[in-house]
Amino acid sequence: MISKSMPQRFKLTIAYDGSAYRGWQVQPDGSTVQGVIEQALQVITQNKVRLFASGRTDAGVHALGQVAHFDCPKRLDARTLQNGLNSLLPPDVVIMACDIAPDTFHARYDAKRKHYRYRILNRRLPMAIGRQYVWHVPSRLDLKSMTAAAMHLMGRHDFGAFESTGSSRAHAIRRVTRAAFLAQTDGIVHFEIAAEGFLKQMVRNIVGTLVQVGLGRMRAEDIPRIMATRDRRQAGPTAPASGLFLVRVFY
Amino acid sequence: MISKSMPQRFKLTIAYDGSAYRGWQVQPDGSTVQGVIEQALQVITQNKVRLFASGRTDAGVHALGQVAHFDCPKRLDARTLQNGLNSLLPPDVVIMACDIAPDTFHARYDAKRKHYRYRILNRRLPMAIGRQYVWHVPSRLDLKSMTAAAMHLMGRHDFGAFESTGSSRAHAIRRVTRAAFLAQTDGIVHFEIAAEGFLKQMVRNIVGTLVQVGLGRMRAEDIPRIMATRDRRQAGPTAPASGLFLVRVFY
Repeated sequence: MISKSMPQRFKLTIAYDGSAYRGWQVQPDGSTVQGVIEQALQVITQNKVRLFASGRTDAGVHALGQVAHFDCPKRLDARTLQNGLNSLLPPDVVIMACDIAPDTFHARYDAKRKHYRYRILNRRLPMAIGRQYVWHVPSRLDLKSMTAAAMHLMGRHDFGAFESTGSSRAHAIRRVTRAAFLAQTDGIVHFEIAAEGFLKQMVRNIVGTLVQVGLGRMRAEDIPRIMATRDRRQAGPTAPASGLFLVRVFY
Repeated sequence: MISKSMPQRFKLTIAYDGSAYRGWQVQPDGSTVQGVIEQALQVITQNKVRLFASGRTDAGVHALGQVAHFDCPKRLDARTLQNGLNSLLPPDVVIMACDIAPDTFHARYDAKRKHYRYRILNRRLPMAIGRQYVWHVPSRLDLKSMTAAAMHLMGRHDFGAFESTGSSRAHAIRRVTRAAFLAQTDGIVHFEIAAEGFLKQMVRNIVGTLVQVGLGRMRAEDIPRIMATRDRRQAGPTAPASGLFLVRVFY
């Protein structure tokens, strides 16, 4: 008697350079990160396989540690699967880790916290090397007032003012556990933000607003007022996708 | 009476991402860094202008501080020229500095020393972000023996064994003033080398040889013997262009 083995659930940790993709999620037209990984999985498993990520990332957004799960219809050990995927994937998508996960694990519903990084190049001149991974802001930013502004984001708030339209969610209340600027070398500034969950384009809308503060066009004290309005039009413009990295998802 | 003003010589310091270019020097086919800058200069000056660099870089090689000079037939101040060029150039070429130079300054003949960096990613997994700027060597490298091997390069030697064919030069004797490995974060290793002059693909041929030492396929003590043969076939393979950066030219 042959006992048909159950599919094995795997958790993938994925790094990608989002420059050439129309975001994570499969689209009717254009290349997506989910799409290229599902294609590679189909080659390996000889089956249509569906990937579930911790969340979407927009077109052009990068990841150092996106997480996704899928059920593998074929018996494969984790290392073989990881090597097989990496040999089939384009060089701008790398499977950093491949782990056996419990059948109950869900990359999206089990995510407890996410950590994003936004990279700003704050100097007069743009950069040739690594320009794909920053937002170039040539005017001098006042990091002190941006830090003061970022402090107002900490904790549990309604972030509706930083939410782009087109998302479906029960409410806009989220809890931010970290929001800090770190000056790096060569004029690069990192904005690190962690929260239990994020709204659509929330990080890019926050960064666009904090840069207004850094340029002196808004004040740090304006942030609580803007948040209280829950009106997207009160906040600053959306920062470009190129500077944004999904760093890590915590479970 | 109109006195026709003399052309002004300018010194440009240029950063470029070489990924999309067939090297520095203008070629009959394909895009080159010299070509795109000369095109921009032609727009600005309304004249055909010829650029002279400190030296060529191969297809795919990057620069943080290539230097070139040219004679500007139009009266322009340095800042206006720099801003004009940067607004016309593609984002992978950036004029980092533009300075008035004496009429006698020559980017190639006056160069006293050049500093190159070669970036190796030494870990099992490739990287998605910044993959254009490294050579991925997945097997563990022994940095201690590579450092010992690099020490043999220091000083005045005939580097013919590290010279690719097709170059014209009087002799292959060069003086290396620095040759050191620096371990960075995330498995990245920098090889820094400075010399009064370099032969064709000398840095890439040296790195390809030192990696053979790091993999245990050659020994550090083999380096003096290889150099003594002045035979390119005795040294290791040419390392890929993607990891190489012309960091700075000293005058």
